[in-house]
Amino acid sequence: MEVNKNINCANTNSPFSGQGGDLSIIKIGGNIIDDETKLSSFLQNFASVKGKKILVHGGGKLATKLADQMGVQQQMIDGRRITDAETLKIVTMVYAGYINKNIVAQLQANGCNAIGLTGADGNMILAHKRKHVTINYGFVGDIDSVNADLIKSLLDQDIAVVAAPITHDGQGTLLNTNADTIAQEIAKAMGKYYTTALIYSFEKNGVLLNVDDENSVIPVINPAGYAELKSKQLIFAGMIPKLDNAFAALSNGVGRVIIGKAEQLQQLLAGTAGTTIKHE
Amino acid sequence: MEVNKNINCANTNSPFSGQGGDLSIIKIGGNIIDDETKLSSFLQNFASVKGKKILVHGGGKLATKLADQMGVQQQMIDGRRITDAETLKIVTMVYAGYINKNIVAQLQANGCNAIGLTGADGNMILAHKRKHVTINYGFVGDIDSVNADLIKSLLDQDIAVVAAPITHDGQGTLLNTNADTIAQEIAKAMGKYYTTALIYSFEKNGVLLNVDDENSVIPVINPAGYAELKSKQLIFAGMIPKLDNAFAALSNGVGRVIIGKAEQLQQLLAGTAGTTIKHE
Repeated sequence: MEVNKNINCANTNSPFSGQGGDLSIIKIGGNIIDDETKLSSFLQNFASVKGKKILVHGGGKLATKLADQMGVQQQMIDGRRITDAETLKIVTMVYAGYINKNIVAQLQANGCNAIGLTGADGNMILAHKRKHVTINYGFVGDIDSVNADLIKSLLDQDIAVVAAPITHDGQGTLLNTNADTIAQEIAKAMGKYYTTALIYSFEKNGVLLNVDDENSVIPVINPAGYAELKSKQLIFAGMIPKLDNAFAALSNGVGRVIIGKAEQLQQLLAGTAGTTIKHE
Repeated sequence: MEVNKNINCANTNSPFSGQGGDLSIIKIGGNIIDDETKLSSFLQNFASVKGKKILVHGGGKLATKLADQMGVQQQMIDGRRITDAETLKIVTMVYAGYINKNIVAQLQANGCNAIGLTGADGNMILAHKRKHVTINYGFVGDIDSVNADLIKSLLDQDIAVVAAPITHDGQGTLLNTNADTIAQEIAKAMGKYYTTALIYSFEKNGVLLNVDDENSVIPVINPAGYAELKSKQLIFAGMIPKLDNAFAALSNGVGRVIIGKAEQLQQLLAGTAGTTIKHE
């Protein structure tokens, strides 16, 4: 038996790809994943984005909820979940199983052929267990390498890759890995094949000049502009690590970084919403 | 960052593939999955099987255990789990998440590049919700089609496919699907590209002449021999549906079907253990 349905979500005559990238790497976080209506609407938007694309999703509150149901105590240090063996099992089930597969099924329903992978699949992302002098983070992975050729082979078949925040160490152990970092490392690795746009979805409209005014979005930041904003202390301190990270990505093969609301995905890609961080 | 590790588990100069199949589709059930030591040893064997290969895994007892922990009542009719929405969530987490990803990570550790997929991934297996006059099986899928081209594209990259017993309906719904049937439908669909061997692992040494004697394995059964065994009532009644299924697979493009113990995987493929069911 053969599938005849011609599913294809990566046409080339794109209104977006011409504007700055053959490949969009889009990261969504818990605020979207935990809200069924928002997620469904986001996935419709994602499906309609033209060109090659990768979705990286975080975890959301489901893992914590399941841990509660199972009576597994969660430990947090500095806002990071300590991943003991039981927690690793839970995040593998929730992130790589429930969330990842439901996203893929919904994308298929929206006419977008997608494949859901962890870092272990096809050896997509190799990591090592985090080493830290004082804190034992448990089964938390820091990324060593991304298998750009595997990802390219799927994108070349017009399949969107949906990456779960789980990697592996190549020795049989799965590792819980930060989704922002996964998105960034994938974007960096794919730079050798594509002009990449890395989109971080976020609860605000973009980088704001006035943190209390959602209409004060700075549309474009380049290195000179960033230096000026910092020297005049016009950037909210909490944004500085994010922006430093974005500029680091730009220095490592990423074409542009966009920060904004997931709900405005297509406008973010078109440059009509959010903040675009560029080389110049 | 790029992966330099050259993982490849599908060499062509195989001691097995020459003996009857370019592609082995191997199904393992709960008896292996529930036993960590057996599973680990099986995966070592699977990794060392030469030639292109697909592993289809069942569910095991973990889903039932998790349902108990979560206080979700399980309903069975005729030995089949009724898959309500809560149960679908559990089997998606356990089969597509925990079991599938741990198998993939272990295969990677054994030097076998593998990718774990559900039917939703890459639209690998399209199914529909089972229709039944009197029983509502819930989210249980009967298979409509297998995407042989996707599977071939992965096998051609020397990646072993690890299929979880979850499919989708193309409308956004995941479906719980029998792993034996998945193995059979994949084997049938791949027949157009490969000479296929479909291996069902099983708790006995093979098809036995005397059900109480593990040494009474019938090494080969062809249609004439099967007719004779049936007419003389030498076949244990419980085996007849399995064998009827095997002959149906042979009529639909499968090269040979092998039934035996997962622990003897390489001997099964070499034809020195288990029962091989062939056209002639």
